[in-house]
Amino acid sequence: MRIAIAGIGHTSFGKSTATISELLFEASTQAITDAHTTIDAVDAVYISNFSSRFSNQCHLPSVFASLWKTNKEIIRVESACASGAAAIKEAVIAIESGLYKTVLVVGVEKMTATPTEIATEILATAGSQEEMKHGATFPSLYALIAQRYLHTFGAKEEHLAMVAVKNHKNALLNPHAHFHKEITLQDALQSPLIAAPLRLFDCSPLSDGAAALLLCAEDIAHQFTATPVFLIGIGHDVDAIELYKRKDLTTMPAVVRAAKKAFIMAERTPKDIDLAELHDCFTIAEILQMEDLGFCEKGQAKIALENGITERGGSLPINVSGGLKAKGHPIGATGISQAVEIVQQLQERAGQRQIKNARLGLCCNIGGTGSSAFVIIFSR
Amino acid sequence: MRIAIAGIGHTSFGKSTATISELLFEASTQAITDAHTTIDAVDAVYISNFSSRFSNQCHLPSVFASLWKTNKEIIRVESACASGAAAIKEAVIAIESGLYKTVLVVGVEKMTATPTEIATEILATAGSQEEMKHGATFPSLYALIAQRYLHTFGAKEEHLAMVAVKNHKNALLNPHAHFHKEITLQDALQSPLIAAPLRLFDCSPLSDGAAALLLCAEDIAHQFTATPVFLIGIGHDVDAIELYKRKDLTTMPAVVRAAKKAFIMAERTPKDIDLAELHDCFTIAEILQMEDLGFCEKGQAKIALENGITERGGSLPINVSGGLKAKGHPIGATGISQAVEIVQQLQERAGQRQIKNARLGLCCNIGGTGSSAFVIIFSR
Repeated sequence: MRIAIAGIGHTSFGKSTATISELLFEASTQAITDAHTTIDAVDAVYISNFSSRFSNQCHLPSVFASLWKTNKEIIRVESACASGAAAIKEAVIAIESGLYKTVLVVGVEKMTATPTEIATEILATAGSQEEMKHGATFPSLYALIAQRYLHTFGAKEEHLAMVAVKNHKNALLNPHAHFHKEITLQDALQSPLIAAPLRLFDCSPLSDGAAALLLCAEDIAHQFTATPVFLIGIGHDVDAIELYKRKDLTTMPAVVRAAKKAFIMAERTPKDIDLAELHDCFTIAEILQMEDLGFCEKGQAKIALENGITERGGSLPINVSGGLKAKGHPIGATGISQAVEIVQQLQERAGQRQIKNARLGLCCNIGGTGSSAFVIIFSR
Repeated sequence: MRIAIAGIGHTSFGKSTATISELLFEASTQAITDAHTTIDAVDAVYISNFSSRFSNQCHLPSVFASLWKTNKEIIRVESACASGAAAIKEAVIAIESGLYKTVLVVGVEKMTATPTEIATEILATAGSQEEMKHGATFPSLYALIAQRYLHTFGAKEEHLAMVAVKNHKNALLNPHAHFHKEITLQDALQSPLIAAPLRLFDCSPLSDGAAALLLCAEDIAHQFTATPVFLIGIGHDVDAIELYKRKDLTTMPAVVRAAKKAFIMAERTPKDIDLAELHDCFTIAEILQMEDLGFCEKGQAKIALENGITERGGSLPINVSGGLKAKGHPIGATGISQAVEIVQQLQERAGQRQIKNARLGLCCNIGGTGSSAFVIIFSR
């Protein structure tokens, strides 16, 4: 059975005065409204949220039940920054089991009310405490990955900066993006050093936001939309949480395996993909994923960047939404936000961001340093 | 399709020097060993854990991957104190979808290393922040429920105490129980007042522990065990997180609805149940569940208690494990621990705790003040 997307919802990403409940409500209302239906048509809900510490709130299933005055079956799932795709996976499985016909997936995180030093501590709970106690927070772990990558493949800091410049430029066209600020290669290369070689513009921000998808069984998709998009492949894989256990820092094995599963299920190859939303929590992550997903040979992402392949006008636009880097990265929402962008593009309603003739799109959502990975392929 | 239990695992509950990783590993090793198999036979894992704040660790899927040197598909689920049953539900759905044949479910919480006042704050994240900001932590919310129940049905504090005395007595026979301490009705009634009418012995403790179940499709159960037990019914329901929104404090509507779903799926009635593990986070909760699950008429639980119906030797033994009250309540493990007890009883390997001729057992796992509820029915 194919799973159809019946509706989508997406709040603004950035610094918001809304509470986590209000964000949840806004995104889910949009998805339900987009499907021209009501909460009564929803059989179950999966909520994606990374850490209860940001908002001092666990038990979001009952928060949602209260918001919507409903007793739909609701469960929260978590797999660090890949929580959003994990929730999509659970919804897909539940529809395929025959238990439900229509499942709402909603992801949320409210991060900006937390002081940055506390936020860094909270983010570090997604990593190995053995590594973190030595001060290895995520910027420094991704810096190690970047160091090794640049060294091994002769790539330069300019290539990292090209990802940031592209994604900031793309975000100018996205009304929901956290940043609407064009930057130059020089801006990126001269921005403050965070953990060498990563600079400020290599890092995604702390954001507030929520995103939602209403999924349904293919046979009832017409009840909700005249232009259904289908989820035709999903791959999930995991790896050890410690970066030091990885034999080769220039690849994320869980991404490679998740992609293989998704492409097999979708009966497609990387060449068939028209556009992709990748998980650029740090610029180096987008580069690794370009290769691990099979869009370039290992070490060749720099050439693709130099040739503008992944720009809006290139042959494989990546992160036309602005990506985590510039659209923002409210953790629990991110995997679902990626899917929302791809669905909008495939339905040709992405406004100024529209990529022409996009028929097949891919999302890659990862957790930690890629130790959780999900790849999802959508087709119109 | 029926779901079979291939293996079970359970650590000691109580104060442990083990880390959360060690607890996860111990319970999962036991379940896999009990099924006479290896991790290679496991297709996927669902991890139940309530709050990352206790152990400073989110992203348990990758922690598990590291512990087991595996790349099985792993996701964490959470629904407050009902997280364990939520993980069982996701495993059942995934097997029914045909995606997996064998799924490990493991729940864990490591609570005793956290100072009690901080633990109380963390537990309060399972409730409405609107209520909690007025100081309404869970003991006081359950106290309101108990006040109303005693007033409405003419029950007495002695009836609450009877639950505590019974569960402490039962725990004497459970080597994994947090407490091995027999108490008298007088002990309970003279214990310090926590939130009237609830006293110390009306409250479950903070515990460390983990529990695991290996579930599989019925057609392969014989590969793992000669005495399979089957999950024949599961019901899930939710309610608003705020207690003040509940029209009648003497019933938990989500429990009533979850039970109805489980009994319909199992094609059984409450009269068919031979023993049950109920969610006695506070003694009043066991009393409400006796009625909400259909074991007694509303307001009649006191008579069942007076007549010893729910004692080990009664016609419907409840919480022969010792319950949350005396076995302990490591939150993420609790729902799975309940299932482990029922499976052991149905397989006639509960040792000194064995209830004769137990053929049908029920678990009720709730979150918050019953705003998440799961009812699961097992048959041998």
